[in-house]
Amino acid sequence: MSSEGAAPISSSLPPAPPGHPPKVTNRGRSAVPISTLNSQSSDVPEFEPFGAPGPRGFPPMSGEGPDESNKQEHHTMLFNSDHLLVRRGQEFKIKIVFNRPYVPATDLFAVEFVIGSSPQYSKGTHIPVFTTKDRQSSWGGRVTDTVDNAVTVGITPAANCIVGKYQMYIAVKTPFGIRRTRRDKSRELYILFNPWVSDDAVFLDDEAERQECVMTEIGIIYHGTIDDISERNWNYGQFNYGVLDACLYILDRADMPITSRGDPIRVTRKASAMLNSRDDDGVLVGNWSGDYTYGVAPTSWTGSTEILLTYASSQTPVCYAQCWVYAAVFNTFLRCLGIPSRVATNYFSAHDNDGNLKMDIILDEGGRIDRSRTRDSIWNYHCWNECYMSRPDLPTGFGGWQVVDSTPQETSDGMYRCGPASVQAIKHGQICFPFDAPFVFAEINSDVVFYTRDKDGTLVPVKVNRTHIGRAVFTKSPGAMTRRDITDQYKFPEGSKEERTVLEKAEEFGCPREKADLPAGDVDLVLPILELSVGDSFELSLEFVNRSGQRRTVDAYISGSVVYYTGVTSSEFLFKNPTVTIAPNNSVKESVAVESKKYMKSLVEQANLHFIATGKVQETGQIVSAMRVVTLIWVILWFLQVSAGGKVNEEMTVAVEFTNPFTFSLEGVYIRMEGPGIMLPMSKYYSLIPGNSSLNWTEFFVPQRAGSRTVIASLDCAALRQVNGSLTAHTPAP
Amino acid sequence: MSSEGAAPISSSLPPAPPGHPPKVTNRGRSAVPISTLNSQSSDVPEFEPFGAPGPRGFPPMSGEGPDESNKQEHHTMLFNSDHLLVRRGQEFKIKIVFNRPYVPATDLFAVEFVIGSSPQYSKGTHIPVFTTKDRQSSWGGRVTDTVDNAVTVGITPAANCIVGKYQMYIAVKTPFGIRRTRRDKSRELYILFNPWVSDDAVFLDDEAERQECVMTEIGIIYHGTIDDISERNWNYGQFNYGVLDACLYILDRADMPITSRGDPIRVTRKASAMLNSRDDDGVLVGNWSGDYTYGVAPTSWTGSTEILLTYASSQTPVCYAQCWVYAAVFNTFLRCLGIPSRVATNYFSAHDNDGNLKMDIILDEGGRIDRSRTRDSIWNYHCWNECYMSRPDLPTGFGGWQVVDSTPQETSDGMYRCGPASVQAIKHGQICFPFDAPFVFAEINSDVVFYTRDKDGTLVPVKVNRTHIGRAVFTKSPGAMTRRDITDQYKFPEGSKEERTVLEKAEEFGCPREKADLPAGDVDLVLPILELSVGDSFELSLEFVNRSGQRRTVDAYISGSVVYYTGVTSSEFLFKNPTVTIAPNNSVKESVAVESKKYMKSLVEQANLHFIATGKVQETGQIVSAMRVVTLIWVILWFLQVSAGGKVNEEMTVAVEFTNPFTFSLEGVYIRMEGPGIMLPMSKYYSLIPGNSSLNWTEFFVPQRAGSRTVIASLDCAALRQVNGSLTAHTPAP
Repeated sequence: MSSEGAAPISSSLPPAPPGHPPKVTNRGRSAVPISTLNSQSSDVPEFEPFGAPGPRGFPPMSGEGPDESNKQEHHTMLFNSDHLLVRRGQEFKIKIVFNRPYVPATDLFAVEFVIGSSPQYSKGTHIPVFTTKDRQSSWGGRVTDTVDNAVTVGITPAANCIVGKYQMYIAVKTPFGIRRTRRDKSRELYILFNPWVSDDAVFLDDEAERQECVMTEIGIIYHGTIDDISERNWNYGQFNYGVLDACLYILDRADMPITSRGDPIRVTRKASAMLNSRDDDGVLVGNWSGDYTYGVAPTSWTGSTEILLTYASSQTPVCYAQCWVYAAVFNTFLRCLGIPSRVATNYFSAHDNDGNLKMDIILDEGGRIDRSRTRDSIWNYHCWNECYMSRPDLPTGFGGWQVVDSTPQETSDGMYRCGPASVQAIKHGQICFPFDAPFVFAEINSDVVFYTRDKDGTLVPVKVNRTHIGRAVFTKSPGAMTRRDITDQYKFPEGSKEERTVLEKAEEFGCPREKADLPAGDVDLVLPILELSVGDSFELSLEFVNRSGQRRTVDAYISGSVVYYTGVTSSEFLFKNPTVTIAPNNSVKESVAVESKKYMKSLVEQANLHFIATGKVQETGQIVSAMRVVTLIWVILWFLQVSAGGKVNEEMTVAVEFTNPFTFSLEGVYIRMEGPGIMLPMSKYYSLIPGNSSLNWTEFFVPQRAGSRTVIASLDCAALRQVNGSLTAHTPAP
Repeated sequence: MSSEGAAPISSSLPPAPPGHPPKVTNRGRSAVPISTLNSQSSDVPEFEPFGAPGPRGFPPMSGEGPDESNKQEHHTMLFNSDHLLVRRGQEFKIKIVFNRPYVPATDLFAVEFVIGSSPQYSKGTHIPVFTTKDRQSSWGGRVTDTVDNAVTVGITPAANCIVGKYQMYIAVKTPFGIRRTRRDKSRELYILFNPWVSDDAVFLDDEAERQECVMTEIGIIYHGTIDDISERNWNYGQFNYGVLDACLYILDRADMPITSRGDPIRVTRKASAMLNSRDDDGVLVGNWSGDYTYGVAPTSWTGSTEILLTYASSQTPVCYAQCWVYAAVFNTFLRCLGIPSRVATNYFSAHDNDGNLKMDIILDEGGRIDRSRTRDSIWNYHCWNECYMSRPDLPTGFGGWQVVDSTPQETSDGMYRCGPASVQAIKHGQICFPFDAPFVFAEINSDVVFYTRDKDGTLVPVKVNRTHIGRAVFTKSPGAMTRRDITDQYKFPEGSKEERTVLEKAEEFGCPREKADLPAGDVDLVLPILELSVGDSFELSLEFVNRSGQRRTVDAYISGSVVYYTGVTSSEFLFKNPTVTIAPNNSVKESVAVESKKYMKSLVEQANLHFIATGKVQETGQIVSAMRVVTLIWVILWFLQVSAGGKVNEEMTVAVEFTNPFTFSLEGVYIRMEGPGIMLPMSKYYSLIPGNSSLNWTEFFVPQRAGSRTVIASLDCAALRQVNGSLTAHTPAP
């Protein structure tokens, strides 16, 4: 069987009995069950007699062999698959070899395509393709070449046809009826979305973007904090063997009607629900607890392949994920099916749990944070996906990039899923259009509101920070391993007239915000940016600035906590409440010494510290505040090395070397490694790495393609999360 | 305890230890679990000290006693409940009796309301109400009267406050802290939506509509066919004991966040998903199979009370429902919570299963229906709900009536639920706005398209019927037991210019329709309206009209089938294919005799026969067709009698008499009976009623209110469904 396309078409002589139709279980309510499984398909009868019964003739022709020129033109050359893989709305070619020379005038035949369990022409699940000009169906067909018994047929699937795996038959018209070739699994073909064709809903008129958002296998996901942006490489692996079948399995598992699978809006919405396990036993189980005993720690994954293949083979949700894992695997799904997509990271993402645009921070009457009553949380960062498509269901202007998010945050419209929400609509406050635009709007536009709580339970707003949330949105640049700031696609500049108009618009659609016009005050608190490594003892220096001509006295509360990346506090390790006096038009620094042992014992994954200072000015009653999140850097000895000069199909080595930087032993350590086009995901387990000792792991691999190749590796154990690295080597052509 | 309002407020002296907070299970992801249970609530501490610890003083005052004048003004007098029941945005009064005379200047107190398990002022789940002008919270408060120790307080909940069950406390400010009364279940109160107040999102400025759509307990649901409309009485029972708690249980069971429960859009959307058991173990299990062995036949129910109380007590879905049962129970839910609502019936409702606007009927090349390929079905009727609310999430103009539908038809946006979809938006083809407007639009605007199928699988449209679907939408008239045609609220007149514009608009938003411009043809088929009783033998007379000046010959196919009300065929009992010749400008009648025994043995519930005639004109190739659905009438001896002259609190009787009209025995017969304000649902089971014999069932009841009272009864067994009746009697005041 050729790996360049579908297998040759063989003829079948005596017709086999037709397959049994699926059992009808919904008698009385619908005529037939809806086809929701691409993996299931019914046989098309091999012989369909015309009118009066006649003798069953032999088919005068049989066919075989596809054309081999499709993969390059359809941008499917990277798929590791034995089947023909093409994109819709664009011609592909198959070669049919008959048992005698083909005579166009009298030999009538059609190439038929069938998908799902109840194929029907009017539903787009059974499409005959004709080769004569006077008779064409919804898919185009023509004979492009004839040499003796061999006929090459060009077929153009409709640009809105169903995406998935089709059966292919040759149907020959005989005097007594239609004769078809037998079903043959090797002749199955996949039809994908096509961003290169203008009639397709996912058309993206920019080759650099298409190369990045469909063809690129290695990505960068941004995390950390806005003051100290970290990045993580990810192997999307959308072309790896089995990944496309796993993606189709996800839609089958979701019982998604076959007939809806040509519509990128419905496919992406369904997938945003199915990528997480909530509601529907979808792909990934979320876990933010720090305890990953019964699965893989979210920080440990290096790519999507292992996750998708495990889900498809075990048919149970895979443990565990946090937001970037959801976004990364969703990205694989989208790129694999041909929908342009990228992972975006929003810094200080509001986790809105009551549909308004406020993150509430509650202070007591003295200005100290009331932790038991402060319930909203601001994620240090949150990852989602953007995918590119037209939006015929919305008024003109809202096509293009759409936010989809599969992380189960709050339920959005009653299920754990989100989008597609038009980025244009979000930017312009037009959040009345589906799907979930108000939710995404709040993630990037909420205000942080400080309230003072009276003993009787009422809250008085005392300070509003309108710029903290949605500080920046980043994604990877097309064609380069660099960062791209796409904040301006989501919102107008802070303080601009347009921004105000948008917020008013959103308010019309039921997103109220805190409008209390509070006096600016004349005292500021400034917390500096800190760059710290794990284990550092340091000084936290808080500056009090008095811009008035009078003396000011501040009763201040300085608090330091270990937090999760979701902004949720794990434990407070620092608390001080100095009273600071500042001379007119002057400033005072208050320093707090923090010893490493204070925070080390309670550090959680991703090693974030959150400092917040609040206070009340005695003379004016003004409430002051400042916040800062610091991600501690792990100083890790961690080498990744690829042997030089490897060629395609020649063996090479990759070596990982790691030294335990601590005096104590690390237990239960996993190392993972993978690289697109060079090696599938591998992992190795070390039950114990003693303090200050090193390990070496060398693997052999055989590069299958020439060019730059990246290996991504991670190391993970309960005491040390988020260790990862990557290395790019160049493989010369053989 | 008074039935006019909340119980007296009693004081508590030594403070009890505060309740344990709920266990946090989502550590690392959110600060506290979201409150989704109205049935759960946390205690508010009885004593909250001020600043420095001081001696714990006794509260200087204690309170007791509510005011008794709320029920009439809040239109909650019909609720059978021991608790105070009021509507939001409108003042209600409570009376507080202190232990010494109240001194306004120095005695500071608040009435506090708390809902759900994590009360917080900023979330609207903990609301202190103050009585002084200079200090007011989001709910209004004032002292309306003071007599010695007794103070009457008027409280106005915010018009957008959360709807559900609240705890009430009196909080007194002492020099050392806040002291509260102890929690007391009898002081729980319910706050409902308020269509009488203009600030409420469900405000409906029409007293007749409000009386019908909120206060009326007996309804009419239309069914049958457009040519022969039947009606069924239904006891919504929204004020019955336990029904309101059952409705709140539904939202609890759905894990609906407490903070969303003031928003009628979210409440109705969530409820449309929860009324059916699909996805979420909601209230009712759908069953269209004809086999109801393990539950109650959908045709047997007479009201909603039994269903809702069973669901709330068993906590498992109730068996069984079809569309009118879903709509009726949903109606109870909506009216009970105070959202104006009505049940609407759409005749010839398209069951769209692929999101286009076509119902496909596939004919073979000779013009005969290809039943194995005709898969769309047209429901003879379909019931849904309309509810009334503003739509701040949409542009201006789309508030008012909204379609919600809880019948699990096709999944709508991936779940079995539908709406709210603005009726105005549907009428104007503005189907880009949430929720599910394209789905409802298709139900009333689809075309019936006849295709001829070629052997090679392709379909050619041969006839389009643009007027069959969505023939009429009916609901009950306000204040009368008559029918109201509301079709014009859903669409412009067939053939009008506006109608065309709307269909074009809808097409822009991705609802394509068949646009083949087919020649009108000159031969018509006419199937007359038939009125038939079960067991009738009859003549079906099909008229062939030739409007041309030439002879026409039609190869016709006449088919008669037993169908479900969903339009799905159970079995064909009649088939004939005459060839009919018609002289120029003439007509011919073709009669077919149908004997009762042909259809009787295969008759299914609701006794619908579906006749369809199709054919092809030999001379022109024109395809002709005609369709007719007939609901057979059961001639049943069935008497319902109420004893005359009953007075409130005097015993009366209701008698049911039934004679088995058949020669064979009826087995497993259930009779059900209920009447709002006079009797709760009752049922009686008869294992056998011999042929032609009668039964009598007499029940005693005590009317609790004066006025017109209706008893609804139904009889149901496998051989005889859909027997129901009602009787209205007048109960004079005592």
